Amino acid sequence: MSTERHYEREFVRTFFTSPTAVKGEEDSAKMIRSASGLRGMQAPDVWVPDNEDATAPNMRDEGAENIVEVVAENGADFPGEIHPRIVWHRDSPATRYQGFQRMLKIADPEGGAVEHIDGFVVPEVGDIDDWKKADEFITIIENEHGLEEGSLSMSVIIESGEAELAMGDLREEMGKPSNNLERLFLLVDGEVDYTKDMRAMTPTGELPPWPELRHNTSRGASAAGLIAVDGPYDDIRDVEGYRERMVDNRAKGMTGIWSLTPGQVVEANTSPLPPEEGSWLIEVGGEDVELEPDDDRQVYEGDAIGLEEDGDEYVLRVGSDERRLDEDELREELLDMTSYVPSMDDIVDSMEEFEAAKEAGRGAIAMTQATTLVIDGVEVEVSNDRMWDEATYQAAQTPITLFQDVYEHRPDQHEELAEMYSEDVVERAMQVGN
Amino acid sequence: MSTERHYEREFVRTFFTSPTAVKGEEDSAKMIRSASGLRGMQAPDVWVPDNEDATAPNMRDEGAENIVEVVAENGADFPGEIHPRIVWHRDSPATRYQGFQRMLKIADPEGGAVEHIDGFVVPEVGDIDDWKKADEFITIIENEHGLEEGSLSMSVIIESGEAELAMGDLREEMGKPSNNLERLFLLVDGEVDYTKDMRAMTPTGELPPWPELRHNTSRGASAAGLIAVDGPYDDIRDVEGYRERMVDNRAKGMTGIWSLTPGQVVEANTSPLPPEEGSWLIEVGGEDVELEPDDDRQVYEGDAIGLEEDGDEYVLRVGSDERRLDEDELREELLDMTSYVPSMDDIVDSMEEFEAAKEAGRGAIAMTQATTLVIDGVEVEVSNDRMWDEATYQAAQTPITLFQDVYEHRPDQHEELAEMYSEDVVERAMQVGN
Amino acid sequence: MSTERHYEREFVRTFFTSPTAVKGEEDSAKMIRSASGLRGMQAPDVWVPDNEDATAPNMRDEGAENIVEVVAENGADFPGEIHPRIVWHRDSPATRYQGFQRMLKIADPEGGAVEHIDGFVVPEVGDIDDWKKADEFITIIENEHGLEEGSLSMSVIIESGEAELAMGDLREEMGKPSNNLERLFLLVDGEVDYTKDMRAMTPTGELPPWPELRHNTSRGASAAGLIAVDGPYDDIRDVEGYRERMVDNRAKGMTGIWSLTPGQVVEANTSPLPPEEGSWLIEVGGEDVELEPDDDRQVYEGDAIGLEEDGDEYVLRVGSDERRLDEDELREELLDMTSYVPSMDDIVDSMEEFEAAKEAGRGAIAMTQATTLVIDGVEVEVSNDRMWDEATYQAAQTPITLFQDVYEHRPDQHEELAEMYSEDVVERAMQVGN
Repeated sequence: MSTERHYEREFVRTFFTSPTAVKGEEDSAKMIRSASGLRGMQAPDVWVPDNEDATAPNMRDEGAENIVEVVAENGADFPGEIHPRIVWHRDSPATRYQGFQRMLKIADPEGGAVEHIDGFVVPEVGDIDDWKKADEFITIIENEHGLEEGSLSMSVIIESGEAELAMGDLREEMGKPSNNLERLFLLVDGEVDYTKDMRAMTPTGELPPWPELRHNTSRGASAAGLIAVDGPYDDIRDVEGYRERMVDNRAKGMTGIWSLTPGQVVEANTSPLPPEEGSWLIEVGGEDVELEPDDDRQVYEGDAIGLEEDGDEYVLRVGSDERRLDEDELREELLDMTSYVPSMDDIVDSMEEFEAAKEAGRGAIAMTQATTLVIDGVEVEVSNDRMWDEATYQAAQTPITLFQDVYEHRPDQHEELAEMYSEDVVERAMQVGN
Repeated sequence: MSTERHYEREFVRTFFTSPTAVKGEEDSAKMIRSASGLRGMQAPDVWVPDNEDATAPNMRDEGAENIVEVVAENGADFPGEIHPRIVWHRDSPATRYQGFQRMLKIADPEGGAVEHIDGFVVPEVGDIDDWKKADEFITIIENEHGLEEGSLSMSVIIESGEAELAMGDLREEMGKPSNNLERLFLLVDGEVDYTKDMRAMTPTGELPPWPELRHNTSRGASAAGLIAVDGPYDDIRDVEGYRERMVDNRAKGMTGIWSLTPGQVVEANTSPLPPEEGSWLIEVGGEDVELEPDDDRQVYEGDAIGLEEDGDEYVLRVGSDERRLDEDELREELLDMTSYVPSMDDIVDSMEEFEAAKEAGRGAIAMTQATTLVIDGVEVEVSNDRMWDEATYQAAQTPITLFQDVYEHRPDQHEELAEMYSEDVVERAMQVGN
Repeated sequence: MSTERHYEREFVRTFFTSPTAVKGEEDSAKMIRSASGLRGMQAPDVWVPDNEDATAPNMRDEGAENIVEVVAENGADFPGEIHPRIVWHRDSPATRYQGFQRMLKIADPEGGAVEHIDGFVVPEVGDIDDWKKADEFITIIENEHGLEEGSLSMSVIIESGEAELAMGDLREEMGKPSNNLERLFLLVDGEVDYTKDMRAMTPTGELPPWPELRHNTSRGASAAGLIAVDGPYDDIRDVEGYRERMVDNRAKGMTGIWSLTPGQVVEANTSPLPPEEGSWLIEVGGEDVELEPDDDRQVYEGDAIGLEEDGDEYVLRVGSDERRLDEDELREELLDMTSYVPSMDDIVDSMEEFEAAKEAGRGAIAMTQATTLVIDGVEVEVSNDRMWDEATYQAAQTPITLFQDVYEHRPDQHEELAEMYSEDVVERAMQVGN
């Protein structure tokens, strides 16, 4: 038996939480009512009516009722999955029992919501035995309400050292006959509470980056056939920072991220998809700067790199360091400094080319990427070969598989995707690799 | 049952080792005798008469006797806890038996030391079954000497891959009826021997940074209710490097560090406490530089950033890169480049403000930090909002909880703390969050 | 019982794969025939006739025959160990059965190859129970062919989250009577397939660096007495990048690396050995730059650091930041910026010096490294003391132990090593530490 994913959607880009009951509003369900109307790029892959931290403790009973009402009314038309978060705590049986009672109410078929609810999000879990308690409650709820056993999924927030360690045992525990942990769906990092639980501190009060936690979550998801999602990014105005975090997450195999606003949802729905246009980067002082395309040329417009011709030779300045190079050395040096970010179109092209080569009996082919760099008006041709074999092909396929998964499960985004990429590229991307 | 800490002190900032017997001195106990007299910021939270590596093998029997003599005499007045380190090795039964015999002698009530001894430090442990051997010896010692079972704590040095892995099993093993592993107290990294055990090499012979080991130690401590301590920092003159290491450790949830000299003890006792004065930082080339306060203004005095007004616009130079920005863009850019390190006073203020808001029924409030930046004589107002909710509040509380723990357990530091912060700030810090 | 290594060679620098059958060549075994003739620095410590990814699927039966033929003919004279890689997949019983059949054929004594074959490399393993399936097949093969049980070693490629987690259980599982996992030898990271399995993506398609995977592999090897090897470095032309990766690996305790060409084998055989000549480094903007030796002086030839005398003071410029310092401050600052990379000769000297001190009853001595720095023609003496104790000594010993291991097991490299270091240094390096 292979590691199977027990759910329909293979990728989750966005995990969007909304307060379930807001005090002092005429309609306390205002926030989830409005969220339930989101469509297209503004609508998340997973929507989380949040009856835990985002809702004040004394509003949570009302919040549970609001979930039932809004999801019964609007759930059928919502384009993403719906996973309410209830209260839970590894250290408090009272909180756990509250969580059970609210799940029992939300899942009651009488309310009409449960047929649109895909599962529950359980925060503050501890070690694996604590996960089993939540799983058991859901099993009881399914049984009480005449739902199929295992039909409600369970996602957890990893916000304690115990929970981080528990992810190492999942694969083994999920097979045991006395639980239904196969219902597990998302492993979501919760860095604010994790930081508190680890008693970590930074001088400015910013959250630590926790690279090891994110690795372990991604690995835990991979080993157990689940999906890894990163926690909230507090600084809502800092779009650039949110994007950088997502790039870093994807290099760890963590494709999804929490979104706090519809604006963040748009960013997080878009960011993992290959870009419409390819681009060239040049490394300056440890950072990659994008070059300006000008026809077939790529122009460096900063001051940190300088280039001059001097007879047969070139003088290349990087920061305050100057070097005299001949043409070959210059080309080699610039090749090392530059890299190419392929567009969706480029990736599809390369995959098709490799598929054709494979059919013709060749196991490996060189893919070439060439351009003309312009620095201080001096033009230099650079060209980069990369060998593709079966493994390269399969690794390159991940963004395409993601795109295909999105396209299949989110018809409400078809129009925006076609605008982004053109109908033709979308069609070829849906064909390749199958 | 929640993850409980089975010891009085919640934090340990300092782990200070002293040789127990020095050859060729008139009084071979000279070093521990002098260490036992340390008070105030020079006295560590945990003092370790070191009868392992710091004491020559042929002096260790004498060292055990010295511990008994000095601790019996001065232990009652020592302001920190006392945890002698004995010899141990996962691969050597002879060494383990020596460790047992020396613990048996040190803990003998006849010597008069054991009533001041809080526990033992066991180095070179291996997998969890090896930890149990040490635990069992301590149980036997407690029984032989009529001490309460579990009254002596046990701290271990993590200096092998096996021990690193064992930390993942602690939580589960600590509950078992056939051991007394609840006596565990500190998990201390030992990077020199760990480097040897991992057969790691660096070109200059410096120790590798081992970020994953430190994460795993901190997580292991968090999951099992223990305290994580980093290993020794060899380059005693490099105070700046020691401080940077501690900042990095705290971002991992590791508050404590080994100290080799009373000077390092002062640094390590002070470093985790919030600063007396807040300060503004500006990021230059990946590093944070502190701005110079001048009344309410913060002046950048370096050459790496330049700023000029040019009509309605500004020219901002960072390194050798220049950009032309309007006032809003400039403000946004500078806001991104700057950050604020809050003082103890600031943290207490924010916590009090949030507590008041919570009492008034509000779950989240914005905290504003504003200043006037001065670069090349050009003044720019910047102002930074951060949302605080219950989770932010609790995460921000860690340094205050640490301060309160220190204040409670270290009366000998009250005077120095009052001088540092003023009586008023100390008093408010002791009140907030309770 | 201590953690023992169950194999003769303690270190493996190089893991070199060759395709076992190439289509369209007169001699389909051409590649492995040529690889079997490698000697000296071009010959790897472990040679892997690769009957998996490097060989087209429809050529693998022929590949298995080629292995038998070539190894029977040339195996006796090959200076490294020989470990063919066969097909395997945690998710495919068909692939696993193919792997079994091919190992059965290759190990058949009739073919005459098995007496020169040290073990098999098993790719794409999953959790520990999957490793046991491969181990059991090898046990059956040993029994069928009248070979001693456990005589064939088994190395695995870590290229899934499951396999990464399995490394945490090895130590415990290897002792169980129902398996022969003591036959384990190498833990080899396979980052291309791991990236695919983790569904990770980078903008340029480059492999993520996976620092946590490499740490966990190195730790798993350390805890179970095995050897850790990093995966292939695709960009064959990028020698500098390959070297940097090896430096980074060694700081993690991972000494070995995959090699794709004899050129990479030479680099990877040489890189972990201490350098012939010591060198001084100076840190500029986060990177270490090598100084130019000129007699006993070390000259900085770049533009990023400037130094001027001005009366009793000095003006030190680093990048665009200038500081005015007195002589002591300057010396301190430059000491912080510089470091020394010891040569083999230096390491042997220091070890001998420490051994002499130890014999004279001293446990710790200061080792001094001094030189004259020259920046913009201004000369400054700097001198660095480092304390050596038993632990420092043992950690410093790793490169020497590596050298001794290489020298013992690779007589075919003696000549090249003597040329590199001189006979005298080689002789002293073989003596020290024993």
